[in-house]
Amino acid sequence: MQPHLRSIEPYDPNFTATRINLSANENTHPLPASVREAVDEVLAATPLNRYPDPMSDALRDEIAAVNDVSRAQVCVGNGGDELLYNFLLAFGGRNRSVLICPPCFSEYAFFAQLTETNVRTAGRDPRTLTLDEEALLACARTCDLVIVTSPNNPTGDLADLGLIERACHACHGLVMVDEAYIEFAGEDASALPLLAHLDNLVILRTLSKAYGAAGTRCGYVMAATDIIDALSAVRQIYSVNVLTQAAALALVRKRGALEPLTASIVTERARLQRALEELPGITVWPSSANFLLVRMAGATAIRNRLRDEYSILVRDFSAAAGLEDCLRITVGTPEENDAVIAALTELLP
Amino acid sequence: MQPHLRSIEPYDPNFTATRINLSANENTHPLPASVREAVDEVLAATPLNRYPDPMSDALRDEIAAVNDVSRAQVCVGNGGDELLYNFLLAFGGRNRSVLICPPCFSEYAFFAQLTETNVRTAGRDPRTLTLDEEALLACARTCDLVIVTSPNNPTGDLADLGLIERACHACHGLVMVDEAYIEFAGEDASALPLLAHLDNLVILRTLSKAYGAAGTRCGYVMAATDIIDALSAVRQIYSVNVLTQAAALALVRKRGALEPLTASIVTERARLQRALEELPGITVWPSSANFLLVRMAGATAIRNRLRDEYSILVRDFSAAAGLEDCLRITVGTPEENDAVIAALTELLP
Repeated sequence: MQPHLRSIEPYDPNFTATRINLSANENTHPLPASVREAVDEVLAATPLNRYPDPMSDALRDEIAAVNDVSRAQVCVGNGGDELLYNFLLAFGGRNRSVLICPPCFSEYAFFAQLTETNVRTAGRDPRTLTLDEEALLACARTCDLVIVTSPNNPTGDLADLGLIERACHACHGLVMVDEAYIEFAGEDASALPLLAHLDNLVILRTLSKAYGAAGTRCGYVMAATDIIDALSAVRQIYSVNVLTQAAALALVRKRGALEPLTASIVTERARLQRALEELPGITVWPSSANFLLVRMAGATAIRNRLRDEYSILVRDFSAAAGLEDCLRITVGTPEENDAVIAALTELLP
Repeated sequence: MQPHLRSIEPYDPNFTATRINLSANENTHPLPASVREAVDEVLAATPLNRYPDPMSDALRDEIAAVNDVSRAQVCVGNGGDELLYNFLLAFGGRNRSVLICPPCFSEYAFFAQLTETNVRTAGRDPRTLTLDEEALLACARTCDLVIVTSPNNPTGDLADLGLIERACHACHGLVMVDEAYIEFAGEDASALPLLAHLDNLVILRTLSKAYGAAGTRCGYVMAATDIIDALSAVRQIYSVNVLTQAAALALVRKRGALEPLTASIVTERARLQRALEELPGITVWPSSANFLLVRMAGATAIRNRLRDEYSILVRDFSAAAGLEDCLRITVGTPEENDAVIAALTELLP
């Protein structure tokens, strides 16, 4: 193997089949029947034997219309992962640096390693876990790329739009805002309106969260056309298969039917937070996403008891710097959240 | 963009919607109804909201059983493309070299550019277009990686198994045999039996050709477990989506129902070859794949007239070194082949 790749440990999602899986920030609601029927109909009508449309133009057009940008400002990918990787491949690389603000999505550092991009970090407030804005801006001035996650995984905080604008001015290269969870953050949270006057802003979205389609692997980037052209040039041309293109198009067209699920998750997030905050010895951070980060003594043991005694899977972040004794709990259906509350009420007496 | 990527021109499949598309070596037969029904059934039963099994283990197990290897010797990818890219990412890179034998699949050189792997070439006989075995072996001794395509695209020739064995001994690194078209080449054509005693052999397969599933993007590699581990370490963990995993598993299980299509294509290949050879001024190379390479004066003009006057799309290779005035024609259904023969009979009077 190439020397810079030898230390990679294959990613372990540490998955155990459980009755309730709240470990991966998926949308745990089944798709509404009308949406699933629309998906099944287009899947059954999709020939398998022909290569895909390389650029997913029908899907691009729909995404462009929904977001009021042009087709040329949209690139579709095999999940957000492909787009993140290609972003670092095209614009990063050795002798270049990307600024991230950990704790954040672990794939940033992994893809930086794959592409030999140097990783630099700006810290967060150790108590609130929110961005250290001055540190971020100072470091952005000397980095080639910046990734801001808003809302951030696993801390749940939203980046201020003024900060994103200042970061775009501070950085001589590109600023990506990863908005994987943006649909849970309210109407005015997205950096999309900034795109009109910031030509180095890159917005990453996914259908894996609010759209309930993590399994289909579909993400998209919105950015200035020259950035989209570069991402298009380095991509594997048939990376988005015909089934994903068809299913994603149906989901985006049926997005109105998915909004009640998002609204339910937002309501349940508040209810789950209130309930957890009543438990002894627990810290719950505010969240604009579909998960809550919580801290409690003996978190790893609690996580294992949730799994083994209650068949509930949540994600243990205890080993991550700054997240000692932290668990991340995806907000599920009301019934799933009831089960988590009941179990933790028993486990944290 | 990174300096080594700036010259990339986005791939142009030069696709025009036509009545008959014989340009991309797809399987132009619709899936048998029983197979399509099996695929639709599993697609409709697949939840979209959960992340995929990272390693596609159910599919891996089926592929392993069919090929009499172990699960640990199989890696599934988002088309052969992902596996080719990851092969060069893991084992190539700058200061390393890959040997290819052009004219061959254009993605090899593209992915070598993306990964900064140096490309070296061994020639072919300018008349027969078959491999120059001595040149290949001599160069293999000084290269880090070798890719042999068997049958080769676009020349249709099969690599001798003795040559592959000698290449594995000659090369200090890895030898990939790209067997995308192997199902059209007869029972004893595959290098798979060599895997048992050659630990640097890598076999690449795809479901895009004989399996009629180019749209689903599913390929697989078979190799020694340490090679599979390295490919697994550098991959994007959710690269193969749930719909592709489900469809591919159904297709591999139903492979018996696909064999008559492969047999028909092999029979039709011989018939198309005989018919074309009767036309004036045409050269037809023998082929072990699902296409024929042909040479005729004014090939580009003929290709355009086929498209514009007959609505038949074939691939023009005239601009490729060594392939002046060459077209590649996918072997289609009997009716499609009849149409090509009739059109070329009119155009080559």
